[in-house]
Amino acid sequence: MERYLISTLSGKKYPFERLEEFAENGESLEVGIGGLERAVVKSGATIWERFRDFLPFDNYHSAVSLGEGTTPLLESKKLAEYVGIDSLLLKNESLNPTWSFKDRGSLPCILMAKELAERFVATISTGNMGASLAAYGARSGIQPLIFIPVSCPEEKVRSMAIHGATIFKVDAPDFGEMKQKVLSLATKLKLRIVSGNGPIRVEGYKFCAFELFEQLSGNVPDFIAVPTSACGHIRGLFKGFSELLKARMIKRLPRMIIVQAANNSPLVSAFKQRKDKPVPFTHIDTLANAITTGNPMGGEEILSKAYKHHWLAEGVTEDEILLGQRLLAQAGFFVEPSAATSLLAVKKLCKAGKIKQFDSVILMLTGSGLKDAEVFKHHPLNVIHSSMSRIEADLLKAIS
Amino acid sequence: MERYLISTLSGKKYPFERLEEFAENGESLEVGIGGLERAVVKSGATIWERFRDFLPFDNYHSAVSLGEGTTPLLESKKLAEYVGIDSLLLKNESLNPTWSFKDRGSLPCILMAKELAERFVATISTGNMGASLAAYGARSGIQPLIFIPVSCPEEKVRSMAIHGATIFKVDAPDFGEMKQKVLSLATKLKLRIVSGNGPIRVEGYKFCAFELFEQLSGNVPDFIAVPTSACGHIRGLFKGFSELLKARMIKRLPRMIIVQAANNSPLVSAFKQRKDKPVPFTHIDTLANAITTGNPMGGEEILSKAYKHHWLAEGVTEDEILLGQRLLAQAGFFVEPSAATSLLAVKKLCKAGKIKQFDSVILMLTGSGLKDAEVFKHHPLNVIHSSMSRIEADLLKAIS
Repeated sequence: MERYLISTLSGKKYPFERLEEFAENGESLEVGIGGLERAVVKSGATIWERFRDFLPFDNYHSAVSLGEGTTPLLESKKLAEYVGIDSLLLKNESLNPTWSFKDRGSLPCILMAKELAERFVATISTGNMGASLAAYGARSGIQPLIFIPVSCPEEKVRSMAIHGATIFKVDAPDFGEMKQKVLSLATKLKLRIVSGNGPIRVEGYKFCAFELFEQLSGNVPDFIAVPTSACGHIRGLFKGFSELLKARMIKRLPRMIIVQAANNSPLVSAFKQRKDKPVPFTHIDTLANAITTGNPMGGEEILSKAYKHHWLAEGVTEDEILLGQRLLAQAGFFVEPSAATSLLAVKKLCKAGKIKQFDSVILMLTGSGLKDAEVFKHHPLNVIHSSMSRIEADLLKAIS
Repeated sequence: MERYLISTLSGKKYPFERLEEFAENGESLEVGIGGLERAVVKSGATIWERFRDFLPFDNYHSAVSLGEGTTPLLESKKLAEYVGIDSLLLKNESLNPTWSFKDRGSLPCILMAKELAERFVATISTGNMGASLAAYGARSGIQPLIFIPVSCPEEKVRSMAIHGATIFKVDAPDFGEMKQKVLSLATKLKLRIVSGNGPIRVEGYKFCAFELFEQLSGNVPDFIAVPTSACGHIRGLFKGFSELLKARMIKRLPRMIIVQAANNSPLVSAFKQRKDKPVPFTHIDTLANAITTGNPMGGEEILSKAYKHHWLAEGVTEDEILLGQRLLAQAGFFVEPSAATSLLAVKKLCKAGKIKQFDSVILMLTGSGLKDAEVFKHHPLNVIHSSMSRIEADLLKAIS
């Protein structure tokens, strides 16, 4: 199989085996695979096997898989009505092995590490990415090294560390500075640092597009709303549909919706001002703590795709995030704040007439509500303090 | 379709629509379905549709489903070696919609409530069951009422309440007393109280047996280890295989392994002493806080089945639970303490010669590690406190 890396804007080609995950100029890299025009869906128990023509690895090793993917795609009439459209579908990525979408990207990262016989798998993370790589590292016998800022909540640190990962809690004045230091150290020591928008991870996310293609029996949704931080997820989903188009399995592409917290909206702000580069955010303060990249590497490419393919972009306030989280939970889906951003973003886009009543929309529910217990304090909850003597009266009142 | 309830020990028949979930004498009830001898696997996207001949409801409503089931069954060579057998499979039920096995049982409970046009779905819970019914109630538009003791951790209360459930936090001197009070109130008010070992829930759990049957291509495992509390899960899994036998789809039954924390082992203690009734436990103190039923209703039936079908039973100490949790996480699976009990139980049974090297064993991983953050303090974790000036030395040390 022919495979290579290609710079997403300049088109410069690189060998597939590359230590750094971006081009020298900071552009994102993309995996190119030869022969996609002739790709076909094969038989197999997993999405990785059925779409193996699209996988840039010779083998899918079940021994390194944790059963990522095969997540439900469900309609919610109640939420469709709320946003004002006929068909709203929820793709529940919180039912992945470490309860976030990150797992789909971790599988190919581990396949790559295996192929290169690497001893370590390393990342810089404050949450879902670290937990995912820690679990996949444990599964495959490759030691996970995870760099986190001192500000990272203890609970998140621990759910990475319990997998046996080595955690470096780095006391640094600035997260960006710490990141640069770790990246340059890694180059020096020939250590690959897995990024949220790296080309190999993106290959994993694209398989979610294939899964949607199967679940929708070949139909293409009009819109897919994706909470966006490092950009790997939205890029991977769109790449998946683009490759299905190349293989002539679909006839048109879905339009992506870039969703961000208004308090950290480098891409949404740029999109609204029709700028080519992200508008950098610093001093980020949002409840959506899983989407806090303030100046995403490769963001330029996402904006370029957004203009070319008529994507949409919308930001949501902190109150809208909380409202979205409650409404999703009251429809049965308990997701973390970052995953709840899409609901109100889509509602606002409907109201603005950018999404029409007959358009079909998918919301990507990116992570589990169990990931963040802190947020509860912002929600009104119906807890009745009762006793043995009051319980009958309390119950009667509640059911009358 | 002929359907009824039948008392599991006396064989007394009851109508299917019954308010109480146990017989008058406390025996567990079971759903009987006519014509299972002629049942066949049909086509369909979900397990509920493919095995609809075994479902005691005319319709599976996708509008009330949250996508329960379709969880991974994965082999772990590392853990197989650790316990001393050739084939160990992990069924990861923490990838259900509310991250525990309970969701499989909640679906039929909601189908039942829909059929009876009930306005409320009620349960007494301290954790997973409440979260599951709260989510399914929200999904289906049936108001969840959840009774909890004051001792219930705030985090668990909140992850039920966020779904819009009404929570009664009852200040009672004793959990058992509170339970009796709520049950008698419910009978008076004609309110069904869903139990962890109720006949309708058990119908949901049995579908996991059908899923295993499919995932194993019709092969039957030698053993299935199940952390056991209220008994519904182990009963449902065994009922599923028993019905496959009745339909002549399999030729033999798996042997179940009842697993409990030694600190709360009403069934394991009874089994070891060859008693007919559970040995009641009070003042329960175990880290495995999802399996704390001290005197399970219907436990007699489980013991009777255990003797008749040559099941095994094993208890584990608190240290063994923690070790199991670490070893599972270090193989990629982060589960809550109750779900971690099986690993050491199986290892001990292997060592005792009750499980042989060539036997195939499935561990049911019943719930997510994210459910319980308290337990972390008991684990040694590899967190290196570093800084910008020390990071190079710290990293070199870690990778050398």
